[in-house]
Amino acid sequence: MANLGFIGLGVMGGRMADRLLTKGHRVTGYNRTRDKAKRLVDRGLTLADSPRAVSAAADVTFVMVTNSAAVEAVANGPDGFIAGLAPGTVIVDMSTISPALSRDVAAKVRERGAHMIDAPVSGSVLTLEQGKLSIMVGGDRATFDKVKPILEDIGPKVTYVGGNGLAVSMKIATNISVAVQMLAFAEGVLLAEKSGIARDVAVDVLTHSAIGSPMLQYRGPFVLQMPDEAWFNVNLMQKDVQLALEMGRQLDVPLPTAAATNEWLTAARAMGLAAQDYAAVFDALARAAGVQR
Amino acid sequence: MANLGFIGLGVMGGRMADRLLTKGHRVTGYNRTRDKAKRLVDRGLTLADSPRAVSAAADVTFVMVTNSAAVEAVANGPDGFIAGLAPGTVIVDMSTISPALSRDVAAKVRERGAHMIDAPVSGSVLTLEQGKLSIMVGGDRATFDKVKPILEDIGPKVTYVGGNGLAVSMKIATNISVAVQMLAFAEGVLLAEKSGIARDVAVDVLTHSAIGSPMLQYRGPFVLQMPDEAWFNVNLMQKDVQLALEMGRQLDVPLPTAAATNEWLTAARAMGLAAQDYAAVFDALARAAGVQR
Amino acid sequence: MANLGFIGLGVMGGRMADRLLTKGHRVTGYNRTRDKAKRLVDRGLTLADSPRAVSAAADVTFVMVTNSAAVEAVANGPDGFIAGLAPGTVIVDMSTISPALSRDVAAKVRERGAHMIDAPVSGSVLTLEQGKLSIMVGGDRATFDKVKPILEDIGPKVTYVGGNGLAVSMKIATNISVAVQMLAFAEGVLLAEKSGIARDVAVDVLTHSAIGSPMLQYRGPFVLQMPDEAWFNVNLMQKDVQLALEMGRQLDVPLPTAAATNEWLTAARAMGLAAQDYAAVFDALARAAGVQR
Amino acid sequence: MANLGFIGLGVMGGRMADRLLTKGHRVTGYNRTRDKAKRLVDRGLTLADSPRAVSAAADVTFVMVTNSAAVEAVANGPDGFIAGLAPGTVIVDMSTISPALSRDVAAKVRERGAHMIDAPVSGSVLTLEQGKLSIMVGGDRATFDKVKPILEDIGPKVTYVGGNGLAVSMKIATNISVAVQMLAFAEGVLLAEKSGIARDVAVDVLTHSAIGSPMLQYRGPFVLQMPDEAWFNVNLMQKDVQLALEMGRQLDVPLPTAAATNEWLTAARAMGLAAQDYAAVFDALARAAGVQR
Repeated sequence: MANLGFIGLGVMGGRMADRLLTKGHRVTGYNRTRDKAKRLVDRGLTLADSPRAVSAAADVTFVMVTNSAAVEAVANGPDGFIAGLAPGTVIVDMSTISPALSRDVAAKVRERGAHMIDAPVSGSVLTLEQGKLSIMVGGDRATFDKVKPILEDIGPKVTYVGGNGLAVSMKIATNISVAVQMLAFAEGVLLAEKSGIARDVAVDVLTHSAIGSPMLQYRGPFVLQMPDEAWFNVNLMQKDVQLALEMGRQLDVPLPTAAATNEWLTAARAMGLAAQDYAAVFDALARAAGVQR
Repeated sequence: MANLGFIGLGVMGGRMADRLLTKGHRVTGYNRTRDKAKRLVDRGLTLADSPRAVSAAADVTFVMVTNSAAVEAVANGPDGFIAGLAPGTVIVDMSTISPALSRDVAAKVRERGAHMIDAPVSGSVLTLEQGKLSIMVGGDRATFDKVKPILEDIGPKVTYVGGNGLAVSMKIATNISVAVQMLAFAEGVLLAEKSGIARDVAVDVLTHSAIGSPMLQYRGPFVLQMPDEAWFNVNLMQKDVQLALEMGRQLDVPLPTAAATNEWLTAARAMGLAAQDYAAVFDALARAAGVQR
Repeated sequence: MANLGFIGLGVMGGRMADRLLTKGHRVTGYNRTRDKAKRLVDRGLTLADSPRAVSAAADVTFVMVTNSAAVEAVANGPDGFIAGLAPGTVIVDMSTISPALSRDVAAKVRERGAHMIDAPVSGSVLTLEQGKLSIMVGGDRATFDKVKPILEDIGPKVTYVGGNGLAVSMKIATNISVAVQMLAFAEGVLLAEKSGIARDVAVDVLTHSAIGSPMLQYRGPFVLQMPDEAWFNVNLMQKDVQLALEMGRQLDVPLPTAAATNEWLTAARAMGLAAQDYAAVFDALARAAGVQR
Repeated sequence: MANLGFIGLGVMGGRMADRLLTKGHRVTGYNRTRDKAKRLVDRGLTLADSPRAVSAAADVTFVMVTNSAAVEAVANGPDGFIAGLAPGTVIVDMSTISPALSRDVAAKVRERGAHMIDAPVSGSVLTLEQGKLSIMVGGDRATFDKVKPILEDIGPKVTYVGGNGLAVSMKIATNISVAVQMLAFAEGVLLAEKSGIARDVAVDVLTHSAIGSPMLQYRGPFVLQMPDEAWFNVNLMQKDVQLALEMGRQLDVPLPTAAATNEWLTAARAMGLAAQDYAAVFDALARAAGVQR
């Protein structure tokens, strides 16, 4: 069993750490708000005072935080995880950040004689709990081979994509469809509903049809009943779509559906739905269609 | 075994008729271009000279033609299927047409003492051949109950949606996502590719991720290699998206992703890709991104 | 002075007929709702009982109705204006309808030995009253030359565009920008306003800047105060945008901004603003931005 | 006559400095590429070696550079204009940059006992040369009143918008329409052309119609003949649209037409048109419509 670290114990990170504990690994963890990690401590996790203390205690340290700024906050400075790295140790960054930043952090990690791979996931809380999460990996292959068995303890489908930063590129390219599929689904539900079909029948038919992606199968029903806790809120979804739009401009790829969808995520925020699950893009469109949830 | 009719023996209709023959039904068929039906005649199908001759010979007549104009052409006039209907017989219209026209035709069928249900399908040639096609049904429930076993010989998932025209409404609402998911997928593939990820790796990761709907799983690989025969070409796809846009205006439902996607189907046509499978929306976007197929 | 007819005495048509009376012409008029024409009768207009009675009494008959269906209603049948045409008389259709329908009606007019030109206008009630309206003309040149002096009594800029139907094509191509400019203007006003700039200052700066088209100069201030009577309501504007979108599909021209704008006209309708001036697209966007008018 | 400085002597800045020299002012100038300023030196401009040398020599220093990075490059560091500021002097930043950066630079200028206003312009090379440029001003009113007469030597319409950063906010809000109007115009031209109307007739009718903004009146004809030198190229236009989109997200304003247009600017870049005048968005759309320039 490995000696692991986990920085970022939120909705996804906490469940991943839990899973690693269940598999028998020793896990040292860090979270900005300490009390959220209490349940994990009861389950055997050792809580550290800083990202540096985590990376100093672990052979392989996972990072799962919300955005580029958060990665920079836990990576840099005297208390950052870079400062704690011993030669030969590994950072596995599962956060969805800009590919350029991912490569920058990987370079700094390399200066310490350590290695970093970017390993974002495709899936949700539910996919994770069902043990079906898929993980994309970017970085050098030797490090990938070394860490792969531990990644498989989190999710069964682990795909090597290429060099540093390419896995987050791949993730961002995937998330275009995550956002767009949800809005197109909302358009379909509202069209069916205004035609005279009950909303729950529409959701059932759509999610079981040829367009029923795993994402729509678990998130589609949110247009009937929102979850108590947002799995992935409007703000986070928009952050990912914006990463895609920025990449599109840098690489000269027109992204017509991503751009159109992004403006409806903005509308959702303007309507006060920023902290709700991004399925709330349905609510934004419904209001513009004069329909009550 | 039932005494069936089948009007429209094209890419989908022909395979459905074949399937019904395999299940042991007696099938009388009609196709505008006769020679396309030759293979089915060898398989036991009786070829009739007019839609009227089909409906006169059958207890249940299936109709699977390309658009509203084609349904009107085979339904009306002295040689149309309405003229051949005996009381108590049934028309099963599987074509995707406007809900209003579907209700009009159903009313005329009723005047003959016969019954009509609209029964569009979600899925492709492949889904059909795998015996996984899902069928939505609109019309009166008694007729639905009567015909259901025969529909199950075509595809296993048969869902009753409501009164006449509602199944085509549901189908059109579904097809928004069919078109939009393909374009959003193309955006992701091109973004990944210009980031430095091989196109086939990108397709593999995307189709096996949370956004991998059944439609994307069979059609996604078309961006690597187009099929010899278009399963559903750009013209047909745009016809369905336009039906959705018309409904959106009549029912006051804004359809932002459908509208954005429709303009790229138009671009595909302008670039000479009208007769290709609608996966060619990838090619249209690729050209705008300066990428070669 | 000429012996004129005028079919359609609404917001624009009524003011045009008034202008022709002022110039000294004899005008026979028809309006579906008779009482709306009362004021014009006081000014000297002779009210007829049918479109046919108008065209039978006049050498040149103007038609200014709201859409394709309305043109067909006043053109065809025993009471339609076609039935009343004497050889050598002229129809001037100022309605914005589909180019195909315009050519159809022109052909029927020709069968009577009469001539038709399509002569849609660019401008508003205000432009008309200021005597600045511009008129585009499609049809044969001899008829154009004959009618031109009378058209100049309505508006000073009369441009010959080409054969039958081309003037309405040109008008529809113009109206894309009419709708889109208004929505882009609304985006700018809301962005300025949420930045901390007073709405009236924003309107003033925008309408006097390089983007201040005549249309925005008269309609921009509507975001501060809507007019009592809609000059051109959301329904009519959307009708024109849809004509453009239909032409775009027939002629294979992608219309990305027209398509995006059309969905916001739909949203305006869904929010109950259909009968307001199309400047209400500002209100639709403002609600989506969480802003009060 | 005033003792002025001018940093950034490109397409617009050079012509502005020329105009100030014509009005009799003493002008010290700086440009990154020195030789581009040769013609102005012949006209009497004193060329300095650094932005610092300019601001040290002048009472009022104008800055007109291409983007946020360029403003930071000429503002900061030992050779930046901030380092050269004497108390009571004034910086007039005419660059279009993010409002947040504008406020940051203004704060640093204030620390030196000097004052800054942001003063972006609406208009083009042509508008400037015709003496019709309009200028928006943000900053404290006392500084505005002091500098106003000099600004009027550049353009006659000078509008005070509010505090620091608000004029660039207003400019960005204006530039949404600059980009969108051009694309909507291109849609109209292509629709007219494919209908059978000559392109030059379409341009003439459109630019003289109700949608003919000053911008379209000078730039519309570019779809017939591109200028030898880009007045404002695709890259610069996209920079401004992106500033708008960023503000839209920060302030929660959906910008549907700006977002749609931005993707076509990206397409223009991908097609190799980045350095051409942004009227090249016509060429991008034309290619997607299968039309040759």
